[in-house]
Amino acid sequence: MNRAARTTAPPAREAPLTLPGHPATAPPPDTARATAVLARCRELTRPALVDAVGRLDPWTGRMAAYALGWRDAGGTPDPQGSGGKGLRQALALLSAEAVGATGATALPAAVAVELVHTFSLLHDDIMDGDPLRRRRPAVWRAYGVGPAVLAGDALHALAVQSLAEAPGDRAPAAVRHLSRTLTALVRGQADDLRFEELPWTGPDAAGLAAYRAMAEHKTGALLGCAAALGAELGGAPQATVAELDRAGRHLGVAFQAVDDLLGIWGDPALTGKPVHNDLRQRKKTYPVLAALAGAGPARRELAALLDSDKPLEGATAAHAAALVDEAGGRAATRAEASAQLDSARACLRAVRPDPAAARDLDALVGSLLDRAW
Amino acid sequence: MNRAARTTAPPAREAPLTLPGHPATAPPPDTARATAVLARCRELTRPALVDAVGRLDPWTGRMAAYALGWRDAGGTPDPQGSGGKGLRQALALLSAEAVGATGATALPAAVAVELVHTFSLLHDDIMDGDPLRRRRPAVWRAYGVGPAVLAGDALHALAVQSLAEAPGDRAPAAVRHLSRTLTALVRGQADDLRFEELPWTGPDAAGLAAYRAMAEHKTGALLGCAAALGAELGGAPQATVAELDRAGRHLGVAFQAVDDLLGIWGDPALTGKPVHNDLRQRKKTYPVLAALAGAGPARRELAALLDSDKPLEGATAAHAAALVDEAGGRAATRAEASAQLDSARACLRAVRPDPAAARDLDALVGSLLDRAW
Repeated sequence: MNRAARTTAPPAREAPLTLPGHPATAPPPDTARATAVLARCRELTRPALVDAVGRLDPWTGRMAAYALGWRDAGGTPDPQGSGGKGLRQALALLSAEAVGATGATALPAAVAVELVHTFSLLHDDIMDGDPLRRRRPAVWRAYGVGPAVLAGDALHALAVQSLAEAPGDRAPAAVRHLSRTLTALVRGQADDLRFEELPWTGPDAAGLAAYRAMAEHKTGALLGCAAALGAELGGAPQATVAELDRAGRHLGVAFQAVDDLLGIWGDPALTGKPVHNDLRQRKKTYPVLAALAGAGPARRELAALLDSDKPLEGATAAHAAALVDEAGGRAATRAEASAQLDSARACLRAVRPDPAAARDLDALVGSLLDRAW
Repeated sequence: MNRAARTTAPPAREAPLTLPGHPATAPPPDTARATAVLARCRELTRPALVDAVGRLDPWTGRMAAYALGWRDAGGTPDPQGSGGKGLRQALALLSAEAVGATGATALPAAVAVELVHTFSLLHDDIMDGDPLRRRRPAVWRAYGVGPAVLAGDALHALAVQSLAEAPGDRAPAAVRHLSRTLTALVRGQADDLRFEELPWTGPDAAGLAAYRAMAEHKTGALLGCAAALGAELGGAPQATVAELDRAGRHLGVAFQAVDDLLGIWGDPALTGKPVHNDLRQRKKTYPVLAALAGAGPARRELAALLDSDKPLEGATAAHAAALVDEAGGRAATRAEASAQLDSARACLRAVRPDPAAARDLDALVGSLLDRAW
């Protein structure tokens, strides 16, 4: 959807098709650089990723190529396919550059984290019953549940293998880190599945602290791992590896918070999902939890609406979104993301990164809050 | 079912409730020793396995404890539960002993291969739609498909982590080996799923060579890995590690062939599945493929029966089993298993194993063809 189309969008309460959190304006200055950085990192990683996927048997390899957005479900190259923006691979490469190594040093890490990300989306979509991923049928919808389980297992195994076979004496520590991250991801997904079962209100209600813990496992662990592995393969001291891990974890929680903003107020042309999607599905997102953590009439009306059996569709969903906003949930989420990004920046500064890599990382971090990528 | 009950079993064509391949006799001499060896290895591994599973979050940990046969689906300790006989953990420990190390040296390997085995059964049951595992509902039946996918992922990740954190300078090579095995297992499962789609007869028919390749990936790779990892952590030279890997692969193909005999002629009290189960399900097992590879009237009648849409139930299944036997499929499978076991023995002899470990390994290998475990 282009900008002209946006101006003809219905009033904000019904379908605020702007960037999340604030009205449509010119893209923030970091966005163009961040887009270029991500593209450079994708280009650097792609041959190694193609090479890794080429080691799979043809059948799981075809499912992997679909999941990565390279091919359609029949195996034909798909120019419309999107494999995501590659934030994780970029973090791995930029971390290596930040500690004075070449990005290429971190390629096995970039491949591993991208494969883990693809695997976890693939299996999560089965668990969540999510029929769509990046505007196409999820792998389980395209190939069936059984084959999708297998394709995920293949990507999981291939990720470990890619890193385990990395040259150099730092590969074993990197593999240990990745294996801890893989168990953390499972914990995050388990937390997430249970989190969705908690009530909206009352003593057992889902809270912001539990949300942060879940987001750190579910999203932060892999972003932290990506940054840490890049530094590890880049030969950095352990303190630097740990600091970059922390930077990635903060980025992960920020990323998840922004994802939640996009899940309610994001442009469907950007997210590939209907407007207010996360509200329609009654997902326990940060904006809603933050709104419920407050007080006032909007909070009370929102709580009553969520506790009711009323389907959150159309105008009701738009009204719920407005209530979240009025109760301060949208602003609190931007503030949370912003604070997490500041913490990430502090961690990055602490490792005294190589200046060129620092600029690229800054652009990524700076573009995250208003990301259009 | 006890021996007295067996003597009252219906005629062999209908339900030959004997050990597979030959009539009921006294247990072969190796069986008692093999049973004791397996019990010793299970006892040695159990605390380390409990410790590893204790690192999972409570929810996936409960599913893992169910899958391992330790607890029932509600989390209560289950004295009836069976986690299998532990052939893989035994191979890891005995291999370490065979190369002069203590069994304890190989505990991280024993834990890893047992977790991988449990993970792969768990996910395979989802893919195959198998509702039963070891006489209890499969994990996906007990907890749902989504949670079962997650439990498998948790065991997969935990297996890698357990080995990656093993002490000593041989752990990295062990992890590389395990990661190669994990991709091989996926390939084996992919082969298996596609193998079942092949026609019984004609130019594209499933053949014995393809069967062996599939069995080597699906079963041999992990048994070979178990033996190799035990030797690796035990500090053996690479040639010894490779030879023990080969021994395990031969054992794996033999194990799969015997499994196929049990799947048709096994005692349901032993297998936990109905008599002729694999025939009823039209599984492409070695005995059937070997029967079809021959000639003569039994082979022709069997091919016609399999190519028909006729359900293979009751008397028809029993008749099909008799035809497989008459066409030489049962004898050929015993011969195949026997030859694979001889190859395994040759590999084991080649590494000049420690005498006590050699006796234990011999007992395991010797009991495999007529295994009642």
